[in-house]
Amino acid sequence: MRYEHLTSPAIATLDRDSTILLLPLGAVEQHGPHLPLGTDTMIAKAICDAAAEQRSDTFVLPPPWYGVSEHHMRFSGTLTLSVDTMRAIVSDVVGSAVAHGFRRILMVNGHGGNRPALDVLATTLGKTHYGRASIAGLTYFQLAAKQIDAVRDSRPGGTGHAGEMETSVLLHLTPDLVSMDEAKAVYPDTGSPYLTTDLTRSSPIRTYNDFADLSASGVFGDPELASADKGERFFSAIVEELTRFLEDFAKWPIRGRD
Amino acid sequence: MRYEHLTSPAIATLDRDSTILLLPLGAVEQHGPHLPLGTDTMIAKAICDAAAEQRSDTFVLPPPWYGVSEHHMRFSGTLTLSVDTMRAIVSDVVGSAVAHGFRRILMVNGHGGNRPALDVLATTLGKTHYGRASIAGLTYFQLAAKQIDAVRDSRPGGTGHAGEMETSVLLHLTPDLVSMDEAKAVYPDTGSPYLTTDLTRSSPIRTYNDFADLSASGVFGDPELASADKGERFFSAIVEELTRFLEDFAKWPIRGRD
Amino acid sequence: MRYEHLTSPAIATLDRDSTILLLPLGAVEQHGPHLPLGTDTMIAKAICDAAAEQRSDTFVLPPPWYGVSEHHMRFSGTLTLSVDTMRAIVSDVVGSAVAHGFRRILMVNGHGGNRPALDVLATTLGKTHYGRASIAGLTYFQLAAKQIDAVRDSRPGGTGHAGEMETSVLLHLTPDLVSMDEAKAVYPDTGSPYLTTDLTRSSPIRTYNDFADLSASGVFGDPELASADKGERFFSAIVEELTRFLEDFAKWPIRGRD
Amino acid sequence: MRYEHLTSPAIATLDRDSTILLLPLGAVEQHGPHLPLGTDTMIAKAICDAAAEQRSDTFVLPPPWYGVSEHHMRFSGTLTLSVDTMRAIVSDVVGSAVAHGFRRILMVNGHGGNRPALDVLATTLGKTHYGRASIAGLTYFQLAAKQIDAVRDSRPGGTGHAGEMETSVLLHLTPDLVSMDEAKAVYPDTGSPYLTTDLTRSSPIRTYNDFADLSASGVFGDPELASADKGERFFSAIVEELTRFLEDFAKWPIRGRD
Amino acid sequence: MRYEHLTSPAIATLDRDSTILLLPLGAVEQHGPHLPLGTDTMIAKAICDAAAEQRSDTFVLPPPWYGVSEHHMRFSGTLTLSVDTMRAIVSDVVGSAVAHGFRRILMVNGHGGNRPALDVLATTLGKTHYGRASIAGLTYFQLAAKQIDAVRDSRPGGTGHAGEMETSVLLHLTPDLVSMDEAKAVYPDTGSPYLTTDLTRSSPIRTYNDFADLSASGVFGDPELASADKGERFFSAIVEELTRFLEDFAKWPIRGRD
Amino acid sequence: MRYEHLTSPAIATLDRDSTILLLPLGAVEQHGPHLPLGTDTMIAKAICDAAAEQRSDTFVLPPPWYGVSEHHMRFSGTLTLSVDTMRAIVSDVVGSAVAHGFRRILMVNGHGGNRPALDVLATTLGKTHYGRASIAGLTYFQLAAKQIDAVRDSRPGGTGHAGEMETSVLLHLTPDLVSMDEAKAVYPDTGSPYLTTDLTRSSPIRTYNDFADLSASGVFGDPELASADKGERFFSAIVEELTRFLEDFAKWPIRGRD
Repeated sequence: MRYEHLTSPAIATLDRDSTILLLPLGAVEQHGPHLPLGTDTMIAKAICDAAAEQRSDTFVLPPPWYGVSEHHMRFSGTLTLSVDTMRAIVSDVVGSAVAHGFRRILMVNGHGGNRPALDVLATTLGKTHYGRASIAGLTYFQLAAKQIDAVRDSRPGGTGHAGEMETSVLLHLTPDLVSMDEAKAVYPDTGSPYLTTDLTRSSPIRTYNDFADLSASGVFGDPELASADKGERFFSAIVEELTRFLEDFAKWPIRGRD
Repeated sequence: MRYEHLTSPAIATLDRDSTILLLPLGAVEQHGPHLPLGTDTMIAKAICDAAAEQRSDTFVLPPPWYGVSEHHMRFSGTLTLSVDTMRAIVSDVVGSAVAHGFRRILMVNGHGGNRPALDVLATTLGKTHYGRASIAGLTYFQLAAKQIDAVRDSRPGGTGHAGEMETSVLLHLTPDLVSMDEAKAVYPDTGSPYLTTDLTRSSPIRTYNDFADLSASGVFGDPELASADKGERFFSAIVEELTRFLEDFAKWPIRGRD
Repeated sequence: MRYEHLTSPAIATLDRDSTILLLPLGAVEQHGPHLPLGTDTMIAKAICDAAAEQRSDTFVLPPPWYGVSEHHMRFSGTLTLSVDTMRAIVSDVVGSAVAHGFRRILMVNGHGGNRPALDVLATTLGKTHYGRASIAGLTYFQLAAKQIDAVRDSRPGGTGHAGEMETSVLLHLTPDLVSMDEAKAVYPDTGSPYLTTDLTRSSPIRTYNDFADLSASGVFGDPELASADKGERFFSAIVEELTRFLEDFAKWPIRGRD
Repeated sequence: MRYEHLTSPAIATLDRDSTILLLPLGAVEQHGPHLPLGTDTMIAKAICDAAAEQRSDTFVLPPPWYGVSEHHMRFSGTLTLSVDTMRAIVSDVVGSAVAHGFRRILMVNGHGGNRPALDVLATTLGKTHYGRASIAGLTYFQLAAKQIDAVRDSRPGGTGHAGEMETSVLLHLTPDLVSMDEAKAVYPDTGSPYLTTDLTRSSPIRTYNDFADLSASGVFGDPELASADKGERFFSAIVEELTRFLEDFAKWPIRGRD
Repeated sequence: MRYEHLTSPAIATLDRDSTILLLPLGAVEQHGPHLPLGTDTMIAKAICDAAAEQRSDTFVLPPPWYGVSEHHMRFSGTLTLSVDTMRAIVSDVVGSAVAHGFRRILMVNGHGGNRPALDVLATTLGKTHYGRASIAGLTYFQLAAKQIDAVRDSRPGGTGHAGEMETSVLLHLTPDLVSMDEAKAVYPDTGSPYLTTDLTRSSPIRTYNDFADLSASGVFGDPELASADKGERFFSAIVEELTRFLEDFAKWPIRGRD
Repeated sequence: MRYEHLTSPAIATLDRDSTILLLPLGAVEQHGPHLPLGTDTMIAKAICDAAAEQRSDTFVLPPPWYGVSEHHMRFSGTLTLSVDTMRAIVSDVVGSAVAHGFRRILMVNGHGGNRPALDVLATTLGKTHYGRASIAGLTYFQLAAKQIDAVRDSRPGGTGHAGEMETSVLLHLTPDLVSMDEAKAVYPDTGSPYLTTDLTRSSPIRTYNDFADLSASGVFGDPELASADKGERFFSAIVEELTRFLEDFAKWPIRGRD
């Protein structure tokens, strides 16, 4: 189901009406002392792979790996794209796919810092390719917020960046890359009741939060509550939710064409 | 309280710690057969003016009037900016204000199509001016979603573009510009349970919706339920909610400085 | 006659051959201690409104308010756009109007600092929309230079930025916003006979003049000579001249089409 | 006096306070059936060379040759830059010169189509290098409009593109490149009393004029009146006027520095 | 040795003088009927991984996967970046790494279409980060051209895109992704003795070659000669050559700093 | 044979199938104490002129003079374009020529610093104008590397920037601009066996070399070995090689058209 493993002639035979392409988006950025830099992209890709395994018409594009991580740059190792670079790479990849006739392309994002760029991409690419393709984007922890909340044990603030959920999922996917000894809970104080750091909550207020101001370790939440078993449940719930959406997405009309 | 009515020396004397600048953002786009093209900017500006009247330290910048309205371009009269033009004008205005020492700048948006640009602006401007100013953005019908829902009579879908709330507020503010004879309810069918057209609802899925595909008149919702009295109640509730946020915003630390 | 007050269906019915759209351009910048920051945009808009009232086929677009004011940035409160942002916003608005079939679009500028951008816009937009629309631009105090000179009492240099003419016109339009007590004449010394600061004069030499180098108060000219009565005469003469040009503009062929 | 003929160490020894650099700007575009494509750049360069010969402190930069000539593209052979390319090349060259400490840089333009770009360059480069250099721009037939009018025999409209003056100057400079047999007068009808095609006249109205709409041959004016003798007089008058300006320019203060 | 597997604190402890970061660059593009779309990136990454295994101070950054592949777009499945997108992503990643103090960054390219962008990146990034880091780029089949020629059996033209070498290397690395039944030799006729399609040859002439004009299958060369054993020898020779260069690169002075 | 000396009607009559346009590219940058700043452009132009004299169908475009010379900016007098400005000017000129129907356009480069931009231009312009024109680029000392090596006396490193070959060619072309008294040999030490400074050698490693780090005088090579006689032989060999290539280029198919 990995797009890059197919040959060109194999791509040519895919049915354009039904095929769905998934583009995983993440980041290479600090995830505290206990998680690897590649956490967000690894999770986004794993979710896409798992969902694609359940559908014969769905393929996963290679992830461009990097994301918008300016707010993590004070932590060593973070590698960030500007919003415009993010837009450029995704626009080029999606535009190429549409040029080959693909009609259903979904960006699956696993990194909060990508959301503004994702929103711009979803609307501008949708307009650019109007009449030829349906293009959509989602951030998995928004799509599956209820399901994540059903599994979590942490109170609000505990399921943030490198917190209970991400740590659990990585314990499930690649336990060797997790250092639970280093995992310590941090509940950041944003200084305003209008701002939240929990991945399943949202705020009507948009602003810039430099993570180094809010957490010395870079952790937002409680990774101490994480476990591989819980990670399996988080992961399953998320994949199930993505699969449910794909069933809907597969039926979207291609406006301006159909 | 209108910034453009002050002189340069008057601006120079304003206290930089406490002063808040509000930048209203809207659109010039179709609002059905019963509302004027300028609806979104008029409402955003009116809300800002009303909130500023309740605070001696808050001033309202002139609105750049135009917004991101590609999805309305099939309706006559719509004038749209690209996302990048929107970013450019707001970045220049906010950057100029910061250059004069202003530290608290809030973008108050009244148009759904501006949200992706607003999100990008809130994060990139916050980063650019980190250590010098707090910059935030909000869309009023997200900030006051609960309050709007408390006033509305329409079912989900009824308080969309040019629907019950916007029509009511304009009946309250500028009744001469509203043609209630032309106001007819439209409940668009998005074709997916994941997509909503109601202003107070949100979806985890981002995509492009060309409004002409979903409504022949351009209306999303039920303007027939609108009234001036209801408009007064919507407006008061929104202003109250904005004022409540301003009290919080006035106390935000200027990270990297304080 | 205000474009933003019309509904989309009302716009749709306008005759495309005869309709003229006016786009007022100005600035939000220091105008000395006696005039408000919004002076240039207010005057440009007032002129457009007055001219449009005399023609049933002419409508005034909302002004984007801000202009190119780098040379005023050392004075508090000035908010500037870059030349490229100015170009972007006007290009987007004019392009949208042409997309709806409008064929006669005139930029009416009231700010000297916008002239280079205006010249670029007039030629590039004219080329871009060649065969579909006639697009022109003017700066009102260049169009009506002779008429302004006929009314003024000041010697050369007296009718500059925030000088006799602008102050008089604002006394006529919005006397409450003028502080005549603060109005003091300044005749700047440019240091070269080739450079002028009078609005009705022009120079073959183009260069950058930082206004703070030439006037401590930001005033160029003699506002002490201003009066509301004189303002009425300035204003009438300018509007008359604009109206005269509109009669000509209404008859311009749409090259490449007609 | 040609900058490109000097060595790097020779450049290093030039006095930065007094040295003036001239940058000739022109175009490679149709000049009717009787003048070569390079006319504008050749004249601008010749004027610069002649002026520099009269001053030991003035050097002529190599011309980038091409200019903004969209309005001539319907005539074979025209090679045009966009406004932004024009700005980029001049900005880079001037920026490099300032980096080496040069403080007086003058753009000497010989092509009407470059004027909007020139105006933008003069103001933006002046701002960019404020405190380090004085940067100015002029178009020679505007600088010496009176002097040209004193020599010409043609009525208004006769001294336009490839008309009496340009043809005469080229007969003076490079007679072998002029085909007087092909030279035929054309007095274009712009269709509006507000628009002029004469090089020594100006209009308060800015718009796009595609030259192929106004003249089948591409000529604006009366080259039949041209002569080498007259060309010598035009040329001398222009050089004299430029030299006079250089005397003034040499004394301009470097604002923000001196 | 995979950068994305490290934590932020682990990155912080790396010695900045000795650490080398490798950035693999490739493409997602047609590789004939027998090789997968991801061939170039897979090989570049495998080479980097193998070289890094031999040095304790060398880490491999995640590959952005996509490359400049316009010349392959007529073959289904190819996904291309523009040159400028390629520049943007690499510039952002390298700039971030330099911001964290890394001083030795090498781009290891496996795709011919990336070479122009790579050349621009190597010079512009080197200039941008002058005094802080040494940045270099190479294309592995240029670096190891002699070594590859020593292993190959094909005549000139046989070791091109999807030819003897790439097919052999993939048979060595991921035999399951190679369909040798589909592998057929194509020796393209460029139509000029000045142009070559062999990866180990170079031409002084730069031009655009659309691959679909030169090969119906997209293959340039002779994959029929490929074998896993030969692939092992190609791969070892390339890694050895890269390792040899890394020994040199590790000693390069950081100009402007040391 | 100089394009800018032709009239527009003369251009119109040229046969589009056979005509070749040459665009000389060079630089205005330090060439040691003995050669003028314009060396690279002068040589590129002289080579083009000489080649064009041997073909009735070949014309030389005016050189834009400036090139990419960041790596020489620490030497006084160097004037540099950014890579993007270089791309813009050449793209605009070539695009204009293609718009007039020209089908064979060759960029003839004489400056090493332009090579990355040239490579990008050759591929992107080739793609942009695919089906309409063949566009190619070359650097003369790469095209004629063998021929130059056959004439030279210097050992490797002796024929670099301002070295044996360039100095000889200028002694041949414009001896008055060469100061042989100042010519002193410098054999730079790049610090790596992978890097070369000889014009006829190439390296698989791309990186930034600031010339001031490698040579105090800016000279790379041995100008002491230069002579006018040798310059004549270098020049003839290069022109002969260019002419030979033009014979081939004249026969290239216009892919996508023929």
